[in-house]
Amino acid sequence: MRFTKMHGIGNDYIYIDCMESEPESPDTLAREISDRHTGVGGDGIVMICPSDKADFRMRIFNADGSEARMCGNASRCIAKYVIDQGLTDRTDLTLETLSGIRRLMARKGSDGKVESVTVDMGRPEVGVVDTEVALPDGSRHRLTAVSMGNPHGVIFTDDLSDAMVLGHGPELERHPMWPDRANIEFARTDAPDRITMRVWERGSGETMACGTGACATLVAAATNGLAGRKAEISLPGGRLTIEWLPESEGGHVMMTGPATEVFTGTYIRN
Amino acid sequence: MRFTKMHGIGNDYIYIDCMESEPESPDTLAREISDRHTGVGGDGIVMICPSDKADFRMRIFNADGSEARMCGNASRCIAKYVIDQGLTDRTDLTLETLSGIRRLMARKGSDGKVESVTVDMGRPEVGVVDTEVALPDGSRHRLTAVSMGNPHGVIFTDDLSDAMVLGHGPELERHPMWPDRANIEFARTDAPDRITMRVWERGSGETMACGTGACATLVAAATNGLAGRKAEISLPGGRLTIEWLPESEGGHVMMTGPATEVFTGTYIRN
Repeated sequence: MRFTKMHGIGNDYIYIDCMESEPESPDTLAREISDRHTGVGGDGIVMICPSDKADFRMRIFNADGSEARMCGNASRCIAKYVIDQGLTDRTDLTLETLSGIRRLMARKGSDGKVESVTVDMGRPEVGVVDTEVALPDGSRHRLTAVSMGNPHGVIFTDDLSDAMVLGHGPELERHPMWPDRANIEFARTDAPDRITMRVWERGSGETMACGTGACATLVAAATNGLAGRKAEISLPGGRLTIEWLPESEGGHVMMTGPATEVFTGTYIRN
Repeated sequence: MRFTKMHGIGNDYIYIDCMESEPESPDTLAREISDRHTGVGGDGIVMICPSDKADFRMRIFNADGSEARMCGNASRCIAKYVIDQGLTDRTDLTLETLSGIRRLMARKGSDGKVESVTVDMGRPEVGVVDTEVALPDGSRHRLTAVSMGNPHGVIFTDDLSDAMVLGHGPELERHPMWPDRANIEFARTDAPDRITMRVWERGSGETMACGTGACATLVAAATNGLAGRKAEISLPGGRLTIEWLPESEGGHVMMTGPATEVFTGTYIRN
């Protein structure tokens, strides 16, 4: 089975061109092929499929076989794939996901290949703002809740240490304030247009990059008056530019970042 | 750059056919391409080269860019590669490594491809036998030292828990009894011909599979009267059969295990 390995600031998936046919049992395939020692290795598989509602349709299966609703980093890679492979002539595309239809706007580099992509991540929903949360270990944190389709709790702190992220992430993820757990962002505003963050993803632990987490962090920072409506966000895997458009322009969050092709291959199902 | 990803019971390398030409700066390449998120991902690269002393020559660069002397799991995969790719018609081969020349004997499966390989791992050297070692944390362990070209300390215990392996591995690796640290094996003899083990590799921490560690464990078990001279060894990544030939036949250790091709690919150096 042919595939292309791509990553968006370290969030890496195995991309499968399904324009002609889809693999059988993608959940089983995702578990097998995502193993980083005995498979190709990745955060999961992304299937690039035809759509009758948009230009293309994306299906994502995580490494554990579960189907994901949406992933901003994967969306950027899809834009790179379909444009670089000549599946479309346009650079302004629509993508059908389980979270609805998303718009992708690609920019090419000097080699004629897609270098960065802006994804319309939709309207955020702000929940509690700067609210104190107490944990069983006695620690207290001030948190702003933002939904980007999935739930986020953003904590602004200068302490981005392992003790903070790995020490408090698990309990904050499972705090009873969330009906179904949440992703937790630990963020430091370096300037009104520059934020450094680490993210604890529900079900995954710390990850190198979380697109919706970066969006939620910018929205929380702007809501708390800690940043403007546009900032460069540094995550462990790389940088994203996040812009929260004014309400008069629809109030959507636009995420811009790189998409990188690493290798193409043929998988041998043993 | 074309490559083939293969693993021997989970010990996975990126194999590069260097019969015509070698990549530049293999140390830098190994660091880049071994990254499991932004590269192909693996324990390192293995270069398959021509030799003027043996049928083929193997060079291994670890994920950190350092050059390894020898790897039993990689040797099996090399045999599979050169035979399946038709680089040789024979199944009984010699391989030049930084630890000397090794003999490889391959067996094909029903599909005509190599399924398992026996590697002559050379003569072991037994050091201290069943000696008590005390650690600064107050714990005491009975250890047998075996060199397979690299140093091993084998501890027989029914406790193969994380507390044992991850808790004591680091201090045992660095115990002053070793001039240059050692690999530590925690092994349980389930029967005279069946051993279950976990291995703490110097410089790497716990790994899924260590060929020389499995050999050292069988030698230590036989020396201590806990096993015969041939046993099936279960490691976290899979099973190996280890046989310690009688002194009258040269006293070499023979390791037999599978070699698995996972995918072939073309790496894009960004």
